Amino acid sequence: MEPSSGSSDAGPAVPPVAAVLPAGGSGERLGGATPKQFCAVQGRPLVSYTVRAMERIGWISDIIVVVSPENIETMKSIIEKYGHKRVTVVKGGITRHRSIFNGLKVFAENEFSNHLLQKPEVVIIHDAVRPFVEEDILSKVVMAAKEHGAAGAIRPLVSTVIASAADGCLDHSLERARYRASEMPQAFLFDIIYEAYQQCTDYDLDYGTECLHLALKYCKTNAKLIEGTADLWKVTYKRDLYAAESIIKDNLSQQVCVITDVKEVVAQVGSLLHEYLQSQIKVEAMSASLSKNDSHLQNILSGHCYNFVCLNDKKCAIQETQQLVDVLEKSNVPLLYPVVLILVHLDVSENISFSVGMEELTRIKKFAREVKKKNILVYGLLIQYK
Amino acid sequence: MEPSSGSSDAGPAVPPVAAVLPAGGSGERLGGATPKQFCAVQGRPLVSYTVRAMERIGWISDIIVVVSPENIETMKSIIEKYGHKRVTVVKGGITRHRSIFNGLKVFAENEFSNHLLQKPEVVIIHDAVRPFVEEDILSKVVMAAKEHGAAGAIRPLVSTVIASAADGCLDHSLERARYRASEMPQAFLFDIIYEAYQQCTDYDLDYGTECLHLALKYCKTNAKLIEGTADLWKVTYKRDLYAAESIIKDNLSQQVCVITDVKEVVAQVGSLLHEYLQSQIKVEAMSASLSKNDSHLQNILSGHCYNFVCLNDKKCAIQETQQLVDVLEKSNVPLLYPVVLILVHLDVSENISFSVGMEELTRIKKFAREVKKKNILVYGLLIQYK
Repeated sequence: MEPSSGSSDAGPAVPPVAAVLPAGGSGERLGGATPKQFCAVQGRPLVSYTVRAMERIGWISDIIVVVSPENIETMKSIIEKYGHKRVTVVKGGITRHRSIFNGLKVFAENEFSNHLLQKPEVVIIHDAVRPFVEEDILSKVVMAAKEHGAAGAIRPLVSTVIASAADGCLDHSLERARYRASEMPQAFLFDIIYEAYQQCTDYDLDYGTECLHLALKYCKTNAKLIEGTADLWKVTYKRDLYAAESIIKDNLSQQVCVITDVKEVVAQVGSLLHEYLQSQIKVEAMSASLSKNDSHLQNILSGHCYNFVCLNDKKCAIQETQQLVDVLEKSNVPLLYPVVLILVHLDVSENISFSVGMEELTRIKKFAREVKKKNILVYGLLIQYK
Repeated sequence: MEPSSGSSDAGPAVPPVAAVLPAGGSGERLGGATPKQFCAVQGRPLVSYTVRAMERIGWISDIIVVVSPENIETMKSIIEKYGHKRVTVVKGGITRHRSIFNGLKVFAENEFSNHLLQKPEVVIIHDAVRPFVEEDILSKVVMAAKEHGAAGAIRPLVSTVIASAADGCLDHSLERARYRASEMPQAFLFDIIYEAYQQCTDYDLDYGTECLHLALKYCKTNAKLIEGTADLWKVTYKRDLYAAESIIKDNLSQQVCVITDVKEVVAQVGSLLHEYLQSQIKVEAMSASLSKNDSHLQNILSGHCYNFVCLNDKKCAIQETQQLVDVLEKSNVPLLYPVVLILVHLDVSENISFSVGMEELTRIKKFAREVKKKNILVYGLLIQYK
């Protein structure tokens, strides 16, 4: 779902949507030396997953990651290593609000960027430590922000909220049904949130916690609240890193990339397979010869896909698959889990013979034995039809 | 730390402390068919970990687990399988408050139990899905309840809490510093919380969420609020089960059971080792011959300890260790992880010779090779001294 006709595909004339990810936190609640956004989850920093969640969405034109001064080089090397695109790294302030404000300034003030980025109509603000955000909720908050000026995701309260008196005793507890936890993402018309930040007091910038509150206080904008899913949780404690790791592992086994040949009949079978698989798992599809699509494939790999179906009708089926294996090896993907590669050879030639088929399968078997040492499991399937 | 002189060791004259664990939830937020308290974490139901956390504390005399009618048999079989002691299973009501009330009735009304349990001075209320509760916080809430009539653990809010208006827009956000999340455990003077439940309206019993609120409303008792640690979190979503599993795995590798011989010199070395290790990891100690202590050992095993140090000076060191291996095999412990068993043979005989020592080590080596097949890793250490 796209939030408007303002997709980046429609050309630069349409005001874009940008995203600001404050990633300046020190992670003190995590109890470790590394700030949580830079903690490795399955060998990859958490912030990289969040950036990926944003960059997968075509209608987000710029992603601003705001980090504390000492982490600028770290962040830049993450962007390079994982091939992130459309990302600008900005120096954060000493509080979350000051960091977000710095992030917004790259669209409005020259001093914060080498070149002024195109001012977006709507800006998303999202935490770097909420990696599981989906396009659906991003799209909803953006659309609501266009209409209401501001919008934010909310969730039911997990615990009852209580107020304590000065003596450390219970004063009162809140009626749970009336209240919600304010989560991320939030979205704002750029002019509203930028105006709010410009009017902020130092007290707001140092002790405030809530962008929605600033929009209300300084721009009289009552944000639209959007019920989000449980995926929106924030990595806060060490246990959350454990949970993130398990979720990412789970996802790995539930994604498949279907690579089909360009030829019509093969592309057709690939498309049917794609359609069928889609009801059960996440499917990425590529319909082109491998060699020309290294960069697209590289993107999929950096998305940590570990399952591939290669469909072709070439005589040189194994060479094609060998290319994929080469790309896998060259990539930065840590091969923590076996990569499953299903080689489907569709033989549509006129002269089909049993023995030729057997030879082909024997070759696939030998190939599979070799690449198994590299933690890549190849399964071959030969389909002959006229 | 004990909450009072009212330890159960001091005899039955002192009013005991009891614990009520509501475990009647349906786990709908988890998105699975099994209620979360019965979900297996490392092969063991979550509720069993929470019961264990309670029964490890000597001054808690009775543990009341309240489950929905359809899960009574399941709960009873869990108690039998994991050898839980001092536990009474009670039939829950249709809401959390009704379940807790039923749990309290076993101390006051005959109809809810085969025999009326001794009424405690203080009752702890704790969630079955918060397995990582420590004695320290339990002790603190119990002591505070004795003084104030009621007490509860609190945590800082992770998210800003906001109130929504009727139109689904932001009405206001709460000043985060003034509010806290109300967590478990909570503790009450029995007479206060029982009185509060007796006076409750049906609306309270059906829609109320907070015991502290009832004590305030019906008994004018302002609960003392105690800042708890991050361990108090509640397993709510599937990601929390992942996190629980990782934490339990972590704990496994950080616990050791030291088993020492009864003889003076060995017991002394064992005690020194115990003292030294304690500063770094959790240590359970047993100072007796193995055969007599099957039940104690069984308890330690069901506590999922995977590391053992066996210290003895017997000629038949290996036979003793073999006994431990037998107990391990007979036990219900799933050997998911290698069990590490360090056999320390202290040779204090007068006639020490190098060759006898070498023979002993060779025997240990052979023994180690055999049990390795069973996922038990034996390391031998022979110390000769006069």
